[in-house]
This record gives sequence, structure tokens and C-alpha cells, in this order.
Amino acid sequence: MNPPAPPPALHDVETPVGVVDLSRARSNAERVVAYAAEHGLAWRPHIKTHKSIEIARLQIEAGARGLTVATLHEAEVMAAVTPDLLLAYPVVGSGKLRRLQRLLRREVDLRVGLDSEEVLGPLAQAADAEGREVGVLVEVDAGLRRVGIGEVDGVVRLAEAAAAAKGARYGGIMFYAGHIRGSGPEEEGALLRLAGFVADLGARLDAAGLTPEIVSGGTTPTLWSSHRIPRLTEIRPGTCIYNDRDAVAVGAATPDQWAYTVLATVVSTAVPGRAAVDAGSKALAKEERGGSGYGELFGRPEVKVVALSEEHGMLDLSGTEWRPEVGERVRIVPNHVCVSVNLQDRVVGIDGREARAIELEGRGRASPLPEAISVG
Amino acid sequence: MNPPAPPPALHDVETPVGVVDLSRARSNAERVVAYAAEHGLAWRPHIKTHKSIEIARLQIEAGARGLTVATLHEAEVMAAVTPDLLLAYPVVGSGKLRRLQRLLRREVDLRVGLDSEEVLGPLAQAADAEGREVGVLVEVDAGLRRVGIGEVDGVVRLAEAAAAAKGARYGGIMFYAGHIRGSGPEEEGALLRLAGFVADLGARLDAAGLTPEIVSGGTTPTLWSSHRIPRLTEIRPGTCIYNDRDAVAVGAATPDQWAYTVLATVVSTAVPGRAAVDAGSKALAKEERGGSGYGELFGRPEVKVVALSEEHGMLDLSGTEWRPEVGERVRIVPNHVCVSVNLQDRVVGIDGREARAIELEGRGRASPLPEAISVG
Repeated sequence: MNPPAPPPALHDVETPVGVVDLSRARSNAERVVAYAAEHGLAWRPHIKTHKSIEIARLQIEAGARGLTVATLHEAEVMAAVTPDLLLAYPVVGSGKLRRLQRLLRREVDLRVGLDSEEVLGPLAQAADAEGREVGVLVEVDAGLRRVGIGEVDGVVRLAEAAAAAKGARYGGIMFYAGHIRGSGPEEEGALLRLAGFVADLGARLDAAGLTPEIVSGGTTPTLWSSHRIPRLTEIRPGTCIYNDRDAVAVGAATPDQWAYTVLATVVSTAVPGRAAVDAGSKALAKEERGGSGYGELFGRPEVKVVALSEEHGMLDLSGTEWRPEVGERVRIVPNHVCVSVNLQDRVVGIDGREARAIELEGRGRASPLPEAISVG
Repeated sequence: MNPPAPPPALHDVETPVGVVDLSRARSNAERVVAYAAEHGLAWRPHIKTHKSIEIARLQIEAGARGLTVATLHEAEVMAAVTPDLLLAYPVVGSGKLRRLQRLLRREVDLRVGLDSEEVLGPLAQAADAEGREVGVLVEVDAGLRRVGIGEVDGVVRLAEAAAAAKGARYGGIMFYAGHIRGSGPEEEGALLRLAGFVADLGARLDAAGLTPEIVSGGTTPTLWSSHRIPRLTEIRPGTCIYNDRDAVAVGAATPDQWAYTVLATVVSTAVPGRAAVDAGSKALAKEERGGSGYGELFGRPEVKVVALSEEHGMLDLSGTEWRPEVGERVRIVPNHVCVSVNLQDRVVGIDGREARAIELEGRGRASPLPEAISVG
């Protein structure tokens, strides 16, 4: 008998495909856990970045306290990893409320972030109909002007309503400071304003007998400043498990902490001064940042992805002597890792000298459409 | 016995979800076919826009001549609709060549676009090993500087090589004028330069005994100018089946030809002057166009999506009296339909008073990773 064929090499894998360096992901997780422990914070990572049960387990094993999710599908999937889930998204609509009820029949300790009585009422009612209680974090606008209540009185009123609602359990407050993306004077001002707002809010909630058990915040860009927000109990950064060009641009990570790249193949060098690779906007996502392109080559930071169409990424060779050949493989660091991962069917996890497929169970919405739908 | 429950209404369907107006899609297809017929052109639509067998069939029934695809997975799926396929993408790498060989065992009449002997050689060899011939269109750089040969001599040389290669059948030339996106003086100049280049190239190929049977070009922005390109035999626009804000912005469509929107639910109105919906960059794609936002409300063009995070779209209410309530449904027209469709699990097709799920069989890459992969 012949010896078994050797496993295919990474360079045999079809491109484009996301590649995760598991050793770096572990170090990234450990670094966040160490910081959180130093400052008495819990880390509840947002799994939107990786969408994977395996990576969520890696986070929990590293010391994460529960998980944050954005969709009901993510919640359903991650309930297999931990019962301790924060659904950082208001549940709106009868279909989603039924789905939430099914989730509550499982072993979950679920909190939901929301910012209105219009969301609180039906949610509490749905939980109560299952004989369950759902934890409620009142979402506060930290300055991003996305969701959340921006004035103290409104937060207190909704906290009171949550504390009073049958089927709900008031748990505290949450916010997302996605507008703070660096460490310049403007960002420093925004961080101080946020700290002041949270302090005021905490005092008012205390006075109302609504002391927040949980104060949940923290993005990857503000991750290492989390201890400067008073009363914070937990942080939710997700990107920090893999990091990306944006995380480095805002000073939250260094290039040796990049744990995700997109493996791509050079498919054309016909246009002088450029090379086309097979990772386009359907593998990297077309999110530009201030003229620095859509990504850069791992190990060759001078080579940027300067244009993207759906299945083509264009490398600008003007700043390098390197001249790739058709068929050559490259690895691209995306600007925004979360949306690139979301474009993969699955990713390749590299663990030392071995590699294997990592499924993205939390990807998509898993909301099958009914056979027939009426219009009207 | 009780009468059967009525089918769920469209407004029961979970959001966010892409919605296709099939009647508009049919009209859009018929309009392109009529234009093509008037000018003696074949329409070979690129299916990257819709990724769906049902929509591809609709195009063929309307009179499309074959289909264009970008990936091997799209080719495998669309071979069920028509044997007449153009893979407008170079096939590079051993894994993809093996996949192409499996495809050639089916009833397909496959052409491939390519721009180098490095791609032609292994491709022809792979086809020949199957006892088949693959059609070759030499890709020409129409001015976009993405892929394609930009000078006449190089095109003639590669056409000669294709004509000589065992396993290949020289079929003509193709190009993609993605840089022409409007009808101003600059675009007019680019169109005239392209027309001149194609005329020169045709004459040189004739002189070399390599008269191109197929001259394939045409994007949605240049669709209605296709007859101004000499010797063109077929056009490949894909977006025109659904259209989007970009198609309207460049004058290639009107808003009543929008056949695709993303159905979304208002989840927060807590921030004054804004409303948050549950369609974010993971449903719409974050592709901005010159300060006009990431999408607009269908039927309310004054309401733009001014910010996107992964699961939130922010509607700016400053230009409207309309004040949506939490739970209200809206439909959003994306800037770029192809990348929004690619983010859906499936879409809802509306056909008169009925609606049903439309699967996106061509989505993803369907390249399962081996169990074990070695690194090195």
C-alpha cells in the first residue's frame, strides 16, 4: 500500500479566503483579559467580528465573561458556547419576538439592550408569556448619535419602566462610543465628556434607587482607555480578537497583532505598475479610510489595495520593487475585519504547522422565508 | 376544521431582507433585449448582480444570449440554466483548474476571458486533458487599468497564442469599461477613445487573420451607448436587471426601474432628527458615493441613509416631516445592488399579489476546505 497522501498545503486552498492566525488570536484575547482584570472589568466580546463558535470558545477559555451578539441568529448560535449573553440590539417585530421566546426556552441568561418603551413593552410581555425574565440594559447615546437616550432624565425614566415591567429585569446601562476613534485632542474631549455623562447618570440612577449593576461599554478603539470611564463594569470590544488596519490606524493595536488576513491570488499583471488579485469587494468589503486604500499586503505595507471591484483587488506597485507573477499568493490585511469575515463562507485557521477550516456558524440571519407570502 | 391560516404578509417577514420586484426585473430585462436587438447586439448578462437561477432564467426567457459569470461557483450553478457561459475571469491555480475540468465534463459551451499566456497555457492544457476545448476571449484594457492588455501588439500576440493552443479556441476579445460612469465631456472623451482603440484593434486582428467573432463589452453605465462601440457583438451589463442609486446617478436608469430594495425595520428613534433601522453595512454594504449617503428610502428620496454600522442604518430626518415609529417598515434603495444582494441569505421576490423566497444559489464560493491543511 502507498503511504497516505500528504494533506494539501495552504497554498493549494482556493482563494480568496480569510485566514486566521489562531496563536495571535489567543494572544490578543489574553491581552484584553489581562487589561480587564487589572482594572476590575469583565470582557464580554462582541462575536460579530468572528461569527464562529470555535473563536467564541477561545475567548471564553481566555477569560471572557459571556458574549455579546447583535442578531437573534448570533444569539441562538452562541447559546451553545455560554448561557451568559448580551443581545446588544433591540428586538423589534413579531417574528423576532417569537424567535426570542424560543431562545428563552433554552438555558440562557439573556440581557437585551434597548432605548424605548416601544421596545421594552412587547419584549417584557414576550418573556413573561414564557414564564421568563429578560435582563434589560438601557442604551445610552454616548455621543455617536446612532441609538440610545442622550439625556439623563430619559434614561432614568426607561430604567424605572424596566424595573417595573413584568418579564423584564433591570440590569443597568450600556453604550457604544463608536465616534471616538483615536487619541487626539478631539477624541480626548469626547472621552472626557462621555466620562462626565456616565458619572452624572450613575449619580442620578443611584438617587432614584436604580443603581446600575452593569455599566457596559467599550469599543476596540477606546479599549485601552476603558478604565477612564467611571463605574464601567464590562467592555465589549470585538475587533480586538483579530484587529485590522483601522485598529492600527487609531492606535488600538500594532501590526504584529493582526490575526486575520485574506489569502488571494494574483490573476493579472497586464496593466503596468499594478497587479490584480482575486480578492475584491466581495471578499474584503469596500470600506475606504482617508485615501489609504482598501487594504495592504501583509509583510509588504508599502503595497496598498488602491481599487476594488467585486472580484478584483488592485495592488499599486509604484512604491515597491516587487513584481508579482500570475499565480503568486498574497495575504491582504483589510481595513475592517468584521465585514470581511462576514463575506467568507468559512475561514482557514492556522495553528502552528497545521491548518483547518473554521466554520462561521453565526453568519447570515437563518430566517428562512415562508413558502408563500402575501403582499399588502 | 378551521380554514387554513392565511399566508404571512410581507410585513411579517424578518428584516433586513432584500426584496425583488419581479415585474420590474422583467421590464428591465425586456428593455435591454429590445435595445440590443435594435443594434444587432446579444445580451449576455452578468449574473453577479442577482446570483439566482430564477432570475437568470427570467433573463434567458426575455431573450438574453447566454450568461456571464465571475467565479467557478457561479459557472457551476448557471450551467443548469444555459450551456452558453462566459467566465469573465482568469482561472488561476491548480484547485480552480481541477474545478474547471469537472465543469467541462458537463454540457457547457464555455468561454473564458484572460489577458496572459501564464493563464492561457495551463487553462488550455487542463481543457485538452479532458478532451475538450475552451473558448478564449482576450481581455483588453478599455481604460479602467484593472485587467486586460492595453496595447494592440500585445492583444494580437495573445490572440495568436490562443488560436495556436491545443485545448483552446480563440473566440475574440472582451473588455470592461468600468471607468466610464456618466455622460459628461470627460466620459464622452473616454468613450470615443475606447471606440477608436477597438476599431484599431479590430483592423489589426483582421490583418493578422484573427478576426474576432465575439467583441464583448458593456457595463450598465455605458449600456445605452453600446451601439457607439464599433464591431461590438455582445454586451454584458448585470446591474440593469435591478438597477440601483448608482445606475440612476449615472443616467443609465430611472427610479421607476429600481427592482431591488432592502426591507428594514425602524428599531430606534431615540436620537433627535434621526431614525435607526436594522439594515446596516451587513445588509446594504458601505459603499458611499460623493456625499449622498449609503442609500435612500424607496418612495421618500429626501430621506437618506447617512451613516452605516454593521447592523444599523441611520436615516436623516432633517429634510422630511415624516417621523417614523419604532416597528415601522421601510424599503431602502442601495447605492450598489450587487454587493447588497451578495449579503443576503435569500431574497423575497414579489410577483403581483404574491411573494416567495428566491434562493441565491450562486452566492459564496462553495469551495469546501479540506479537513487538514499543512502550512508551509
